[in-house]
Amino acid sequence: MSKERLYLYDTTLRDGQQTQGVQFSTGEKAQIADVLDALGVDYVEGGWPGANPTDSEFFESKPKLKATFAAFGMTKRAGMSAENDDVLAAVMNAGTQAVCLVGKTHDFHVETALGITLAENAENIAKSVAYLVAQGREALFDAEHFFDGYKANPTYALEAAKAAYDTGARWVVLCDTNGGTLPSEIGEITAAVIAAGIPGDHLGIHTHNDTENAVAGSLAAIDAGARQVQGTLNGLGERCGNANLTTLIPTLLLKEPYRSRFETGVKVEALAGLTQASRLLDDILNRVPMRQAPYVGASAFAHKAGLHASAILKDPTTYEHIAPDVVGNARIIPMSNQAGQSNLRRRLSEAGLVVEKGDPALGRILDVIKAREAEGYSYDTAQASFELLARDELGLSERFFDVERYRVISERRRNARGNLVVESEAVVTVQLPSGSKRSSFYKNEHADEMSDDGPVNALWQALKQDLGPYQEKIADVRLVDFKVRITNGGTEAVTRVIIDFEDDTGRRWATVGVSANIVDASFEALLAALNWKLTKDGAVRAG
Amino acid sequence: MSKERLYLYDTTLRDGQQTQGVQFSTGEKAQIADVLDALGVDYVEGGWPGANPTDSEFFESKPKLKATFAAFGMTKRAGMSAENDDVLAAVMNAGTQAVCLVGKTHDFHVETALGITLAENAENIAKSVAYLVAQGREALFDAEHFFDGYKANPTYALEAAKAAYDTGARWVVLCDTNGGTLPSEIGEITAAVIAAGIPGDHLGIHTHNDTENAVAGSLAAIDAGARQVQGTLNGLGERCGNANLTTLIPTLLLKEPYRSRFETGVKVEALAGLTQASRLLDDILNRVPMRQAPYVGASAFAHKAGLHASAILKDPTTYEHIAPDVVGNARIIPMSNQAGQSNLRRRLSEAGLVVEKGDPALGRILDVIKAREAEGYSYDTAQASFELLARDELGLSERFFDVERYRVISERRRNARGNLVVESEAVVTVQLPSGSKRSSFYKNEHADEMSDDGPVNALWQALKQDLGPYQEKIADVRLVDFKVRITNGGTEAVTRVIIDFEDDTGRRWATVGVSANIVDASFEALLAALNWKLTKDGAVRAG
Repeated sequence: MSKERLYLYDTTLRDGQQTQGVQFSTGEKAQIADVLDALGVDYVEGGWPGANPTDSEFFESKPKLKATFAAFGMTKRAGMSAENDDVLAAVMNAGTQAVCLVGKTHDFHVETALGITLAENAENIAKSVAYLVAQGREALFDAEHFFDGYKANPTYALEAAKAAYDTGARWVVLCDTNGGTLPSEIGEITAAVIAAGIPGDHLGIHTHNDTENAVAGSLAAIDAGARQVQGTLNGLGERCGNANLTTLIPTLLLKEPYRSRFETGVKVEALAGLTQASRLLDDILNRVPMRQAPYVGASAFAHKAGLHASAILKDPTTYEHIAPDVVGNARIIPMSNQAGQSNLRRRLSEAGLVVEKGDPALGRILDVIKAREAEGYSYDTAQASFELLARDELGLSERFFDVERYRVISERRRNARGNLVVESEAVVTVQLPSGSKRSSFYKNEHADEMSDDGPVNALWQALKQDLGPYQEKIADVRLVDFKVRITNGGTEAVTRVIIDFEDDTGRRWATVGVSANIVDASFEALLAALNWKLTKDGAVRAG
Repeated sequence: MSKERLYLYDTTLRDGQQTQGVQFSTGEKAQIADVLDALGVDYVEGGWPGANPTDSEFFESKPKLKATFAAFGMTKRAGMSAENDDVLAAVMNAGTQAVCLVGKTHDFHVETALGITLAENAENIAKSVAYLVAQGREALFDAEHFFDGYKANPTYALEAAKAAYDTGARWVVLCDTNGGTLPSEIGEITAAVIAAGIPGDHLGIHTHNDTENAVAGSLAAIDAGARQVQGTLNGLGERCGNANLTTLIPTLLLKEPYRSRFETGVKVEALAGLTQASRLLDDILNRVPMRQAPYVGASAFAHKAGLHASAILKDPTTYEHIAPDVVGNARIIPMSNQAGQSNLRRRLSEAGLVVEKGDPALGRILDVIKAREAEGYSYDTAQASFELLARDELGLSERFFDVERYRVISERRRNARGNLVVESEAVVTVQLPSGSKRSSFYKNEHADEMSDDGPVNALWQALKQDLGPYQEKIADVRLVDFKVRITNGGTEAVTRVIIDFEDDTGRRWATVGVSANIVDASFEALLAALNWKLTKDGAVRAG
């Protein structure tokens, strides 16, 4: 049986740009368009030509895409012809194959926000769409506030939508602009529109996530017959965001009834790039990726409950709705005091440490982890510290060097010119296996301004600048992220520091330190990072 | 017409604790339970007594709640009686009014994960529930993998669920454990269960967000007749999280058909505390609140699109599905400080600063806040720092003293006995209005152990031990909480420190400091706290 075609319309570059705090550059828009094209979405909406310099520049660059490239704008204003509306002209001048115009379908908005008659508004829609068609463009009509409009005045909402369809719109897109319509209503109203004469294969759905139902609302519209779905990567968008294509795409491709029924521009093989696409967008926006994001989040296949983790070892389908590698993601079995021995063995083997079932070291490792978690440590993300701890218990650790002493000073004072300056300096003394000692000193060089990277950075710079025989192996270690939280260790408040590192091979690892003294907690994590790197790279105790 | 009762069951403290990276302390569990109780949820599930020390300790503390307090566990194991199962005994010994036991209903899991016969499993369920009932507890049965089980073997899934219902379970909770079931299927299968003889007012729904449909799936089950819904605050939970009660509660209370049809333990008035409850949980977990979260996110009522913002000024309902203050949230119009000014005046008057509408200082204060937020500051919780900033712009601030210099040292070294010690010391020099200078020195007295409270504490002790003429007024200030977050200030990563203080009158206030140097950021917050206290208590510039 041949499948029905379902179209994916991406608006990351337009509605996604309405996210608070998001402002794409032209180059970033081009980069994201390429990601979308590699994924295989059917339409890429690039922005609103004429609305701001970035959007205009992006359209002038004429990106080459396999997807249909679309410009966004609004229906012509009342009192002028489509040909003479300069806002519309800027949109048309972008020369895109498809043009999507937003217009009103809710009587309250026509009268309150626009202040024109219902008939004038319907005419604006009809004339605008007819103009696009006459110019040879694929015409889309975004029916703004359609669901609220339909509930308030179904006759007029349908009249406005049909004005677009009757004049040749390829797609009439039903928009839940305020995001307040629940999925069941979206399904019912979409069915009513089809019954009123706009066929489902000319209907699109555009939802927002204000009740956390943007994905469900989109599915409800598809169930009712709509055959185009609009959304954004990572659910970017005005307020709470648009329907999340990063979730919708794998759901439509992998889950029944959609999997058997529909074909889209995205192929199942392309899903393997989905996690990476999502992370790339976060990278561009400098946002921390959402760990709990469906399909692509770092925690999406993390099995923390002990019962879950042990069953996963027998058969991953016991606690996974899809296989993580299908969407380019990976399974994680974090270590925590919820976990049992089978979970532990699995995590050890991921670190290259094979331990037989029943080995008494397993119990000891769990005990140490439990005791340390009670002190405030956390090994969910600090895999490198977990490995070092396990190696200690297994008798597989190496003592490369000892820290004899460190001393760090932060100071705020007036300099010779009477200006306030802040500066930090550190000295670290290590003892090598031979007994010989090396001291390294670091002082912030920007110390004549108020900018100073602080005591932890000073310690890190001092520690890693001269480790004698190990220097070559640790020279490429970089600190990439630093997280601090105050937590309870026993009865006292302590500081837990988790630091992420990377090296030139692209490896990333995280370590943890805990102390009431934030500097000492950080130092513990810094030391662990170097020990892990030396261990992993097979360093030999020396010097 | 009287409304039907719908029950809200919170599992933040149990399934929420399965979130990767989340590890509640006993005190944090108590704090969250109080938040849930103030909101009005019907059930609070506290954890699994006996599974780990924190959970056991929390149950031993016997929290006093209006809500029904529930302990979680699993059905008895095969080959022993309910009375003799030590895992179940630990759960029963917690002595809670309600007990929720998870058990298998999917044939594949019974045979693969448990390795027992289907009949044995059904008997384990029946015997366990009967035991709870005989002990006078309200019994809940979490039917694990119910939807997958029903699709694989509807006869057995129903038999297992009915084993619990027939032996007296108050609630049979249908769990979509793997999170892969779509809302339409959840609705159909829930209806089938009711048709098979378990009444809807004995059915609960427990969903996960692996397809971003946890909220929609819960609504579908309610539509089909289920009358208990389980979820967590902020959607915490295993993998992608559980159904988000922070979204579900306002949807059920504010939106049709639920609003007219149902009554829950949460009253509409309590919704005004929803945003604060959500932020408090993030604070406890030191997570960055999700800006785009429905209802409670900082962006949930942010109107960035120009067309939206101008219509909002005419009538907020044009682009808002609910009024933000109903859930304790606020409207943001990033491009227009028109709406900003009335918010600001309200916040100023809360601080006792009455400023007339149209005062140009309002615009200046908003500009300063904007600039500082771009540097990494946040004034959401740091009310005292906000007040000091506003007083500066209003010409109402007093310069009590200047800090001439500080210097703080943290050191790790070997003491005379060869043991490692960590110690911190600080010196602070202040200049009084007369020009006279005072220096104070503090050194940690526990320095012969590894315990040391670190550089920030040393600075605080030095700063507050001798402020000359102001000493009497600041002597009772205590530091009660300290939060650190790495954030972006301009293009660089900076450290934001928020510190909570209190004094003998029981007043609490919070200040903020930002710098790449964590010590200097902390010092800024410490200084602000003393300035605020002196200002509030009417200190006079002196000395």
